[in-house]
Amino acid sequence: MAKVLSYGMVGGGPGSFIGVAHRKAIALSGKANLVAGCFSSKMEKSLKTADELGIAADRTYSDFAEMAKAEAGKLDFVVIATPNNTHYACCKAFIEQGINVMCEKPLCFGIDEAEELVALSKEKNVVFGVMYGYSGNAMTKFAKQLIAEGQIGEIVNVNAEYAQEWLIDQLDPEQSATVKMSVWRTDPKVSGISNCVGDIGTHIENTVAYVTGLHPKRVAARVDYYGQPLDLNANILVEFNNGVSGNFWCSQVATSHRNGLALRIYGTKGMLEWHEENCEYLTFCKKGEAPRIMARNCGYVYGRAAEVARIPSGHPEGFYEMFANIYDSFTSCITKKAAGEELTAADLDFPKAEDGMLGVKYLHAVIESGKNDSKWVEVK
Amino acid sequence: MAKVLSYGMVGGGPGSFIGVAHRKAIALSGKANLVAGCFSSKMEKSLKTADELGIAADRTYSDFAEMAKAEAGKLDFVVIATPNNTHYACCKAFIEQGINVMCEKPLCFGIDEAEELVALSKEKNVVFGVMYGYSGNAMTKFAKQLIAEGQIGEIVNVNAEYAQEWLIDQLDPEQSATVKMSVWRTDPKVSGISNCVGDIGTHIENTVAYVTGLHPKRVAARVDYYGQPLDLNANILVEFNNGVSGNFWCSQVATSHRNGLALRIYGTKGMLEWHEENCEYLTFCKKGEAPRIMARNCGYVYGRAAEVARIPSGHPEGFYEMFANIYDSFTSCITKKAAGEELTAADLDFPKAEDGMLGVKYLHAVIESGKNDSKWVEVK
Amino acid sequence: MAKVLSYGMVGGGPGSFIGVAHRKAIALSGKANLVAGCFSSKMEKSLKTADELGIAADRTYSDFAEMAKAEAGKLDFVVIATPNNTHYACCKAFIEQGINVMCEKPLCFGIDEAEELVALSKEKNVVFGVMYGYSGNAMTKFAKQLIAEGQIGEIVNVNAEYAQEWLIDQLDPEQSATVKMSVWRTDPKVSGISNCVGDIGTHIENTVAYVTGLHPKRVAARVDYYGQPLDLNANILVEFNNGVSGNFWCSQVATSHRNGLALRIYGTKGMLEWHEENCEYLTFCKKGEAPRIMARNCGYVYGRAAEVARIPSGHPEGFYEMFANIYDSFTSCITKKAAGEELTAADLDFPKAEDGMLGVKYLHAVIESGKNDSKWVEVK
Amino acid sequence: MAKVLSYGMVGGGPGSFIGVAHRKAIALSGKANLVAGCFSSKMEKSLKTADELGIAADRTYSDFAEMAKAEAGKLDFVVIATPNNTHYACCKAFIEQGINVMCEKPLCFGIDEAEELVALSKEKNVVFGVMYGYSGNAMTKFAKQLIAEGQIGEIVNVNAEYAQEWLIDQLDPEQSATVKMSVWRTDPKVSGISNCVGDIGTHIENTVAYVTGLHPKRVAARVDYYGQPLDLNANILVEFNNGVSGNFWCSQVATSHRNGLALRIYGTKGMLEWHEENCEYLTFCKKGEAPRIMARNCGYVYGRAAEVARIPSGHPEGFYEMFANIYDSFTSCITKKAAGEELTAADLDFPKAEDGMLGVKYLHAVIESGKNDSKWVEVK
Repeated sequence: MAKVLSYGMVGGGPGSFIGVAHRKAIALSGKANLVAGCFSSKMEKSLKTADELGIAADRTYSDFAEMAKAEAGKLDFVVIATPNNTHYACCKAFIEQGINVMCEKPLCFGIDEAEELVALSKEKNVVFGVMYGYSGNAMTKFAKQLIAEGQIGEIVNVNAEYAQEWLIDQLDPEQSATVKMSVWRTDPKVSGISNCVGDIGTHIENTVAYVTGLHPKRVAARVDYYGQPLDLNANILVEFNNGVSGNFWCSQVATSHRNGLALRIYGTKGMLEWHEENCEYLTFCKKGEAPRIMARNCGYVYGRAAEVARIPSGHPEGFYEMFANIYDSFTSCITKKAAGEELTAADLDFPKAEDGMLGVKYLHAVIESGKNDSKWVEVK
Repeated sequence: MAKVLSYGMVGGGPGSFIGVAHRKAIALSGKANLVAGCFSSKMEKSLKTADELGIAADRTYSDFAEMAKAEAGKLDFVVIATPNNTHYACCKAFIEQGINVMCEKPLCFGIDEAEELVALSKEKNVVFGVMYGYSGNAMTKFAKQLIAEGQIGEIVNVNAEYAQEWLIDQLDPEQSATVKMSVWRTDPKVSGISNCVGDIGTHIENTVAYVTGLHPKRVAARVDYYGQPLDLNANILVEFNNGVSGNFWCSQVATSHRNGLALRIYGTKGMLEWHEENCEYLTFCKKGEAPRIMARNCGYVYGRAAEVARIPSGHPEGFYEMFANIYDSFTSCITKKAAGEELTAADLDFPKAEDGMLGVKYLHAVIESGKNDSKWVEVK
Repeated sequence: MAKVLSYGMVGGGPGSFIGVAHRKAIALSGKANLVAGCFSSKMEKSLKTADELGIAADRTYSDFAEMAKAEAGKLDFVVIATPNNTHYACCKAFIEQGINVMCEKPLCFGIDEAEELVALSKEKNVVFGVMYGYSGNAMTKFAKQLIAEGQIGEIVNVNAEYAQEWLIDQLDPEQSATVKMSVWRTDPKVSGISNCVGDIGTHIENTVAYVTGLHPKRVAARVDYYGQPLDLNANILVEFNNGVSGNFWCSQVATSHRNGLALRIYGTKGMLEWHEENCEYLTFCKKGEAPRIMARNCGYVYGRAAEVARIPSGHPEGFYEMFANIYDSFTSCITKKAAGEELTAADLDFPKAEDGMLGVKYLHAVIESGKNDSKWVEVK
Repeated sequence: MAKVLSYGMVGGGPGSFIGVAHRKAIALSGKANLVAGCFSSKMEKSLKTADELGIAADRTYSDFAEMAKAEAGKLDFVVIATPNNTHYACCKAFIEQGINVMCEKPLCFGIDEAEELVALSKEKNVVFGVMYGYSGNAMTKFAKQLIAEGQIGEIVNVNAEYAQEWLIDQLDPEQSATVKMSVWRTDPKVSGISNCVGDIGTHIENTVAYVTGLHPKRVAARVDYYGQPLDLNANILVEFNNGVSGNFWCSQVATSHRNGLALRIYGTKGMLEWHEENCEYLTFCKKGEAPRIMARNCGYVYGRAAEVARIPSGHPEGFYEMFANIYDSFTSCITKKAAGEELTAADLDFPKAEDGMLGVKYLHAVIESGKNDSKWVEVK
């Protein structure tokens, strides 16, 4: 019934996690088929993945620029799932061909690059998403809804964090296999000016912005390197654009946390709390009442949070569903735009290149503050 | 690379939850494509679903018997996702054509029917699964592993329950829309001799059996009908085949529970606890130590539990992944069997018709005990 | 200002836990001073404890019968904190002298004894309490209040349990020091016909009765001895006096539980859940709403639960406070009765000998059912 | 047997919470009797409390200076439980008479005052405690033990917070009764330069110092006043004396938190987490293992944490027990010092005036940083 779109992918070859996640999520969403790919810069590897996925050899590439040219007019969108240092060039190549793009975060390294990509995407009129996945979760959507309705009143403080344990062995002289696996993340050539803040810290900024509508106006950060070339931990004071205070903490050396993105939003009339590791629940406490543990797709959940529910409450949804929800909106946006139909709020409920650009700006401000003895730095 | 199988579906038409779940799980598993279906007994509805799914009209049916004959030799397997009263006939029709079957639970109504289907499947040499989904979860697999290794010693008591709230309005004279939706579940013609024990109580029996290897030898049950034609609640004393005691509770009138399947297994050396609503975690407490909250795909998880992990720990997997894990094994079993390859434990790690037969026997014993003032009834 | 009462104690000598708990709780309550005691049947030990507590030697005894006679008219009440086999004789001795009594549970061994003690206490017009401590907790009081108000509607099922791990080593041939410590509990001469059901199973019955007003009409029990002289585990089907069903589980071989008394009460309009190990919280879920985690002494708590609060919410109260709350009521009852003042509901908010008698009857029914292949046995 | 000490109290008159807490805790500890008091600056009120407590009228005062002189040589110690602005003068008056002191925190307003009091106490050779109660908890003691043993390796980040909700109505133009009750806390004349950081923020600093041995070397704070004369919220970057980073957050406008003191200490080999609101538990996660939920007085708990246990695990201890544990050490220290006996680590396991002085210095640094656009300020 609904038109099934065609998409290509750059990255996502053998051993990739995030490329697979995008493909599985698109399959779950069910609105697009993979038809072309540059899965690796080595043709042999790219063909191997293509074969596994049933992609024709003549639509398999080892050079993304070549792919962009060859596939112009044939793809509804492309997914960029490569290491960070190639995002800018990849995005640019496909946007220039007028191909809609969903890029893994971070959007790119430099603020100039980000601004250029956003401007170019407008010029070329392409739909340009950046995969901040947590905004795809039903309960972050419900938190957004409740805040927009004024259910927690005016926000007075925001606490948010993203803690992981997986790089703890970098602090150990006898480094483990885990660390070797992560070499590219901790290599400035591939990861840019930041590891921890860039990889997970920006998720804090984006998810808080999605849920609250607040953006960091300036930051005062203490960034820890522990003798490594890139950061592994950061404690950050935040002043939001409305003057409200917050603190953000991100860490890759925090034992016990796997993907510990957690938000606590305090307002004059109540508070909301959400944890990715238990993403089916949202704690909502109204002033003067007991905290309520709200669960996805229960009868008291409504709005976008209810719309995106796939299965009954108590049968858990997880990470793939977050991505799939984002692809539902992204592909609907592409389809309706192509058909000249009016876009609804649901069609636009996906993270965009502008959000990615804010992430890059935020990241630069944090790292700069860290290098300047935690002085406040404006997020331009 | 790996051969992609072809499958058909009976049921799963407009408004279906469970049919969709099977299709999404198979897509996530990625080992089979849907090519034929009898999605409804009304051709118009069946065609509508077929169209949405891209199934050719000439492989779309409104009569499962006709489909079984027409598709003989063309399908690697069929999924039966119809209401309970049709399972027996559907399974029989496809098995007779030598088509492998995955049937939703309960397998069928009568013990005779169950024994007949199992016997027939052996005669016809088909792979015959029954979808008890919770055995597909990584942490039930890890619980099974730890118990098999003797980590909790000899089992001394088993507490298990499956509580839901969704039929609470059946106790209210002014019944809500929820109740109307559930009419078929509470109609003996469609659901058989039981509603609550059949729909969710059998999941307790099966999941406990999967994890512990223990089967109820006899049961003494108090079954509550609250004036309705079928049961809505049951408290059950269990004596397992090794003489150990347990208690099972199932309810559809238990406010706050959505899909509250929960197991607590106590042994001479430790205990294990798992909840479907938080299915990423397994509590393991060794005698004399503090309880540990184990999480899916962490480094300390191994065996089948590690094999089935799809995404990193902390990025939640959920209900679809359980089904997908079962389909991974089921399709691998079919593929290797067809190729004459040896089957591994992983290939056989899916619930089988024999398990479904045990479920039917358990169900009959519970209902009979309930009707005989909670006298012990043997599970034959 | 308020009259400070004088009390004596039987038991509570060197090494005692429960005698100390009574003394500390009375100190916390602040309404009575200890002035006499028979702390041990060995005078030397009794004097040692007396000395530590500042009790005069001429009010220290090694024979409770002698104490009862000598202290007649001098004590406002006596606390019986001896092993179970002496409760009957101790209570009788003091009641006969017209001395008010607070006895540790169980009240006594036999049903006849219990009935005799209750009758005697009425004849002698003494205030006669039995220390079921959990009814002293603020949140069980709030649960009682909410149920009495109809907030969860008509009760449809009750799940309750009391699980401990401390006798797990009794299942191990190489028994540990823990087991030796517990010898009297597992000795029929001292503990009577039951260990586990008597020691902790009766707390389930009493706490459920306090909170819901429901009493077991009959029970069908599977009682596990694991080769020991007294029971260590029991799974119990319950039919309450209003026909509602429930299941009770008690165990002393359940690893991970220390004093795991837990109640879940399901009604037509909501549910309530309380755990002693986290006794500051009460989960309340109204039908159609999200569960609320209510905490002691928050603004939304009222009635007796609010009256008994000693310190602000979030600064935890615990076990001693439960006992102290019971002593607040018990001593107020004694004081007002002596003054001929009218007794309020608060004055009477302590467990009484009649409750202890019900506990003895319940215990006998459970053990009898266990010995008769789980047949239903009436609680007379 | 053990000598029972005599103590006096300043403060703790009608309506007091903290004075009562000290008295109840001392009663629970059982090592000292209250014999004198200046419970209010109004003689009538002071006498009313004295009468309720059984204190003789001739040892009841309305002027603490008079009391100090009159009671010199008669008291083993005095408890100062007055509003903050009188601590300095009270402490000084009693120390000058050579009377041992336990003062509520904060010790005093000014850094000079704190230094003077500490110096004076040394000159007069008095035992001088400051009641930071959380160090009295068994599980903070066990955290301290595990860290001292190196169980979590070198500390890499410290997250700690103390959140309350009770002043949220100060943000509301229509202020509630709660706010009126709290007037003195928010009045600079009584509370000094800070409300929130002084009242609860210093508990973070002290509890972290107790557990980890780390002290803030400098702080960069964002302090929120929301238009009020004193602070209600603060986000604080911390650099500890060993160079490690941390973040502290304190708030009195954080809905859902009652006394939400929480610590998370991350090290190279593991992490520890403790929450006052669930003070019986300590989460301990070793690198590469699953988190363990440790509970007070279980067999695996040892050292001071085991020594201070009063009742079995699972029967909760709470706030009073923390204070009582501190008084156990404080009184033992006084008794042994008077007897010329050697002091053990247990005798010295209570917070001292030096800790109070550090709290005052910390507080001043935070408030100063907040007034200087979050610049780093040294904690002198």
